[in-house]
Amino acid sequence: MIRYEVLKEDASSHARLGRVETPHGGFDTPAFMPVGTRGAIKGLTPDQVRATGTQILLNNAYHLMLRPGDELVARRGGVHAFMRWNGPILTDSGGYQAFSMADINAIDEEGVTFRSIVDGARIHLSPERAIAVQNNLGADIIMAFDDCPPAGDDDADGRARVQVAHERTVRWLARCVAAHARSDQALFGIVQGGRDLELRAASVSAIAEFDLPGYAIGGVAVGESPAEIRTVVEFTAPRLPADRPRYLMGVGYEQDILAAVRAGVDMFDCVLPTRNGRNAQAFTRGGRLHLRNARFAEDDEVVEPGCGCCVCSQGFSRAYVRHLFAAREMLGPILLSIHNIHHFQVLMLDIREAIRKDAWSSLFEAWPGLLPGAPPQGRERPLDRESSRQTTRKS
Amino acid sequence: MIRYEVLKEDASSHARLGRVETPHGGFDTPAFMPVGTRGAIKGLTPDQVRATGTQILLNNAYHLMLRPGDELVARRGGVHAFMRWNGPILTDSGGYQAFSMADINAIDEEGVTFRSIVDGARIHLSPERAIAVQNNLGADIIMAFDDCPPAGDDDADGRARVQVAHERTVRWLARCVAAHARSDQALFGIVQGGRDLELRAASVSAIAEFDLPGYAIGGVAVGESPAEIRTVVEFTAPRLPADRPRYLMGVGYEQDILAAVRAGVDMFDCVLPTRNGRNAQAFTRGGRLHLRNARFAEDDEVVEPGCGCCVCSQGFSRAYVRHLFAAREMLGPILLSIHNIHHFQVLMLDIREAIRKDAWSSLFEAWPGLLPGAPPQGRERPLDRESSRQTTRKS
Repeated sequence: MIRYEVLKEDASSHARLGRVETPHGGFDTPAFMPVGTRGAIKGLTPDQVRATGTQILLNNAYHLMLRPGDELVARRGGVHAFMRWNGPILTDSGGYQAFSMADINAIDEEGVTFRSIVDGARIHLSPERAIAVQNNLGADIIMAFDDCPPAGDDDADGRARVQVAHERTVRWLARCVAAHARSDQALFGIVQGGRDLELRAASVSAIAEFDLPGYAIGGVAVGESPAEIRTVVEFTAPRLPADRPRYLMGVGYEQDILAAVRAGVDMFDCVLPTRNGRNAQAFTRGGRLHLRNARFAEDDEVVEPGCGCCVCSQGFSRAYVRHLFAAREMLGPILLSIHNIHHFQVLMLDIREAIRKDAWSSLFEAWPGLLPGAPPQGRERPLDRESSRQTTRKS
Repeated sequence: MIRYEVLKEDASSHARLGRVETPHGGFDTPAFMPVGTRGAIKGLTPDQVRATGTQILLNNAYHLMLRPGDELVARRGGVHAFMRWNGPILTDSGGYQAFSMADINAIDEEGVTFRSIVDGARIHLSPERAIAVQNNLGADIIMAFDDCPPAGDDDADGRARVQVAHERTVRWLARCVAAHARSDQALFGIVQGGRDLELRAASVSAIAEFDLPGYAIGGVAVGESPAEIRTVVEFTAPRLPADRPRYLMGVGYEQDILAAVRAGVDMFDCVLPTRNGRNAQAFTRGGRLHLRNARFAEDDEVVEPGCGCCVCSQGFSRAYVRHLFAAREMLGPILLSIHNIHHFQVLMLDIREAIRKDAWSSLFEAWPGLLPGAPPQGRERPLDRESSRQTTRKS
């Protein structure tokens, strides 16, 4: 089971500095979790992941359930032993994937039936099954199975679907709690409620009733605008129990993370650093660089001058990285995944320092793109921001 | 320029223990060079390559000439700076690739004209151009541009083609020597002559006349049987100058390497560890394992029990590696490339120890598959042995 301690509360916002201890060691909060969908951060060894400053990572129960199978992983000693990551791991429940990726046959009170993306087999996922899968995988933190519909229209039908999802998520949480069979794993509840703040408040109240070791804000970044996401997060996060870690699922870009931290969020996951890295995009404090661009062909700068990651500190140039992508060498995606995860981990480190030392202005000096109202970062056209969440949990 | 020293000559064979010093550090011989075709060992960082025990690696001038271009690499400071490998590098001349991969338009005394595999452009490669490319790339050891025909029929036509190739290779070597413009790079000559031992002897005499810092045996593993390759190597290697390193291009499996060492060869390159690794094949002392096989699905052994590579020593299981390949995760090819290169480097280390200590019997105890007349290794069907050379220099 986990233990959470708030070490410092920020004077000017809901931000807090904290520490979570798990059976596989601790992590500092606010924390960023890179996504190791199928039991691996794509292309990186655990040593390389650790060297980015990562303390906890995320695996997808949905993908591991389908292949190689959660029972097979259990017989290997669980995900930690299987993937040789001896630090904290969080698995998500598969709910989001079941609702967003699958060829769904039926959703009802019992659960979801869909076709496997691996072999087309008919799969049933229910609160009980999602918890059994995660008990088998053995992560330190596991997630409730929630009803997570896409952001619908703002009409009566759309609101009704969100209302159903909220109420069903509460009933499913009771079943998750009843099914959860391992005292060494912390089960987090997930708040739903869409863009409807009244429903969000109702969901917080109902979910917090379960007195769980942590709570997540779900049902965001499923198609809303960035402004809508921010409104929901700023409304919801401070209402969650202050003595438990708060996790915002699938968000996001640097500014989104900072806004959520200031709303009181402690944990984040996102595929942006790895997925965009595989697509030749480098995150830097000055914005994102698309290293396939011809203007980098003879650029002898490292990916980000001054960066301390294993890629920049060893002198790999933009010209070389561009060559690797042009030649379709897998070392290109690897180098940018390392750099980008490190970028997010240094962001979290600097945010934690800002909270610890009440030094937000130094943070904004070091990260000019984080200034409220700062223009969209980078010389390259930013990616569609809405894609960050779908990006996240789908991969 | 390089300096070569023979440290010990074997009493029972032509094998020798040695050391080559280059402007980028030294390497022990007999040495194995993994192949970094396009300026990267596929999927591995230089740190990971170094951790396999690799002291020198090979780049393909042909591929780097086409993309990103040798002049671009020269403006980056050469291949060492470009790929962040500060140890010794050897480039091959592109002759083999031009003859074996390209859509050839014309071969004549001037050189070869072919279409680029990158963009279809018409490319001309001559001795002068191949040396200029390699002078631009800046490797410590560069190779002459040779006429390297495939193993032809044993009829008059086939023999005539090999005779032409031998004689042209000698004339082209004179042009390579004249064109070579950098005193910090060691130019190796390449012996041709096919399966015809008389022609091999003539080629050795003619090539050795140039008094070069090293010599290679080319024109092997271009379609002959393993027995034919061995006959040629055992005839040719001892006839090459004893005070210069001898390099057997594109060979091969463990038994082939040992036989060549005992014939007096000092340097090897082959894509087998990386290419087969990317195809889920693990080299072990007990033979090759195909880790896609279902029988490994629940195998909790590391890839090779007792192995000291970064993969086995960190406990990655066969079951996990199989899962990575099943899920098409690039970490699978990465882990097996690391393991396999380490396998070849430990083989070379053990061979050097056997020479140093006159301890061949301990070598055969540690590597039972190397015993002369040992059955084909491993529980899996061996790969086609003839593929090793084409495999090698093409990639």
